[in-house]
Amino acid sequence: MGEKWVLMKTAQTPTNIAVIKYWGKRDESLILPVNDSISVTLDPSHLCTTTTVAVSPAFHQDRMWLNGKEISLSGGRYQNCLRELRRRACEVEDKEKGIKIEKKDWEKLHLHIASYNNFPTAAGLASSAAGFACLVFALAKLMNVKEDDSQLSAIARQGSGSACRSLFGGFVKWIMGKEEDGSDSVAVQLVDEKHWDDLFIVIAVVSSRQKETSSTSGMRETVQTSLLLQHRAKEVVPKRTLQMEEAIKHRDFASFAQLTCADSNQFHAVCLDTSPPIFYMNDTSHKIISCVEKWNRSEGSPQVAYTFDAGPNAVLIARNRKAAAQLLQRLLFHFPPNSDSDLDSYVIGDKSILKDAGLEGLKDVEALCPPPEIKENAAAQKYPGDVSYFICTRPGRGPVLLSQQDLALLDPETGLPK
Amino acid sequence: MGEKWVLMKTAQTPTNIAVIKYWGKRDESLILPVNDSISVTLDPSHLCTTTTVAVSPAFHQDRMWLNGKEISLSGGRYQNCLRELRRRACEVEDKEKGIKIEKKDWEKLHLHIASYNNFPTAAGLASSAAGFACLVFALAKLMNVKEDDSQLSAIARQGSGSACRSLFGGFVKWIMGKEEDGSDSVAVQLVDEKHWDDLFIVIAVVSSRQKETSSTSGMRETVQTSLLLQHRAKEVVPKRTLQMEEAIKHRDFASFAQLTCADSNQFHAVCLDTSPPIFYMNDTSHKIISCVEKWNRSEGSPQVAYTFDAGPNAVLIARNRKAAAQLLQRLLFHFPPNSDSDLDSYVIGDKSILKDAGLEGLKDVEALCPPPEIKENAAAQKYPGDVSYFICTRPGRGPVLLSQQDLALLDPETGLPK
Repeated sequence: MGEKWVLMKTAQTPTNIAVIKYWGKRDESLILPVNDSISVTLDPSHLCTTTTVAVSPAFHQDRMWLNGKEISLSGGRYQNCLRELRRRACEVEDKEKGIKIEKKDWEKLHLHIASYNNFPTAAGLASSAAGFACLVFALAKLMNVKEDDSQLSAIARQGSGSACRSLFGGFVKWIMGKEEDGSDSVAVQLVDEKHWDDLFIVIAVVSSRQKETSSTSGMRETVQTSLLLQHRAKEVVPKRTLQMEEAIKHRDFASFAQLTCADSNQFHAVCLDTSPPIFYMNDTSHKIISCVEKWNRSEGSPQVAYTFDAGPNAVLIARNRKAAAQLLQRLLFHFPPNSDSDLDSYVIGDKSILKDAGLEGLKDVEALCPPPEIKENAAAQKYPGDVSYFICTRPGRGPVLLSQQDLALLDPETGLPK
Repeated sequence: MGEKWVLMKTAQTPTNIAVIKYWGKRDESLILPVNDSISVTLDPSHLCTTTTVAVSPAFHQDRMWLNGKEISLSGGRYQNCLRELRRRACEVEDKEKGIKIEKKDWEKLHLHIASYNNFPTAAGLASSAAGFACLVFALAKLMNVKEDDSQLSAIARQGSGSACRSLFGGFVKWIMGKEEDGSDSVAVQLVDEKHWDDLFIVIAVVSSRQKETSSTSGMRETVQTSLLLQHRAKEVVPKRTLQMEEAIKHRDFASFAQLTCADSNQFHAVCLDTSPPIFYMNDTSHKIISCVEKWNRSEGSPQVAYTFDAGPNAVLIARNRKAAAQLLQRLLFHFPPNSDSDLDSYVIGDKSILKDAGLEGLKDVEALCPPPEIKENAAAQKYPGDVSYFICTRPGRGPVLLSQQDLALLDPETGLPK
């Protein structure tokens, strides 16, 4: 144990967006929710966290770097995750490198952690969910933790509630559980990402100058002051969760869209019922909802579901690729880029959908006609600059280990960021 | 009865703003609500409807003019009010003019009605409440209806629900009632306008290009689709109404403000919980709430309560004149007039408060410093044009008959609009 070896693992973990929302904790320190929630995992090619974890007898303390900048690990959430993982760590042997770590060694060995989001942390796209899921997943692999992914999810949950849902691909349910110690508050996969292959997702990252209430303090205030939250948690969500599971199982998009939109709106309703009230959606969010509602109504059946987390960004789930292309035409008609942007940086992710929509350059965007469902001229307005950019993506897979050395974020010799 | 006489009455009726909100009908045609509501009547000097009603054997049909323009009386709401009043009409004798109308004559005689709001109808300031209250009050006087004001309120209610609360000054409660025929769904005065003389009211008329959902269709959709409304109506409002009555009785501004703000927010929460969701507040409304919440918090006790009806306008109730002056400084700092406005048309109503606030011209507005409770520069932003104008007013009296002939809106000879 006096040697200078470094042992490393690198993992990639997706972010997720809830379609039945988690809002409100019944236990603040264990992060136990007041209701079940259901999410869809987003394709890690477009939104994910990559984390490299390393252990070495040469490390003098636990250290972490997020997007290249060292951050403190002293917070309770990090400490809880590290403690729970060390407790479950097992013997690790790398015969090739001549390394052997005994179970008891993990209590003394220090860790280096480097994490990187392939999307802006500040954009309000559940970076902490992907981040904690990736931290827990990567460390569990490094430490040879034997627990299955659901049991790992209960550890990730203690870092950030919604992180537990990022341990799986496809559609995922976070079961609220009953135990006081939180041991049964875990995520399970409902169906994998291949089950409902038609879905296509467009995220509108909405410009905002307003400082937002953090979801931690926001949900605390809702629990303390909203007179509607308990009714939602006890009466509405249990039924809605069952209906959502059925809709997902049967790929019933009409029900899926109705439940997704209603639950997003109800989450924002309980935020508004909080004292002082919490506003996450802004006028741009409202305009996006109106655009989708109007189109869905004119089609006679839903083409797109919308859902908003603790911020103004819209996550729009289209029933298929065709609907996504039609959606993008509508979105780019109302929310064209500012004159200084180009289409290539305004629509990112799976850009292939742009071609389906007949939008190969800014000229095509400028030439877009108002959607046919718009009857009054007043509703055909354009709001350049209201949206910062769009991300096109799909439901995606769960965490994976990356074996290629060159994808690691830490130097294999020094264990420091590359 | 062959003569060409015209008999007239002119009344003036205030508008009102609910502090415990009415949202949702249990009977659409009788306009019976799902919960009690409480309102404050606004000073008719600044916001009121004036209505002249006339009867003459020379009239060939019932006719009505609103703000100088003839409108149809064929709608069910007008017909219900007219039918209920005719049913209760009594003998009328004007010896001076030599006119005698028998009870039975009212079924055959036609009416002319002219109504005028001293504020923009489109501004979303409960013009239909004042309008129907004034119509019913004036006709009841003309027809010598013996019913008291609470019984009249049950008739006005059938024109527009909130109109029943405009038959009294001060603070008014609309009791939802239990009877199927709506006979016990009436307004009663809680206290008159002198009881809580300190209060001062500032209304921010917020600019909006969005087309708003009418409250009639909005509340229908909420009743049909919101899973939170029934809980609000059955569990939350009954307790809150009792607490509000106590707060008003004891002039307990802290409780009054907490209840008023919470109930406004909960009303908008159930609108958001509607499918499709209804947004009445916009980003400007949100900014006004943040401004008030921040100031109230910094003072340690509420200085101002806010409430929003089915639109983006803020009704701000200040604990006293001093608080209202300080409020106006804050509002005019964040929401100065557009460069083409002058202060005289930007702040209307009881302008005396401007002097208290040290704001005698646009230069004083430009010289305003950010409120001391603002710590970050980002929160000290100005939004010229977000507010169309402010109305300064107070709690006010109930309906009155105007005896001066020159205030009548109909010509005493012809019975046609002057």
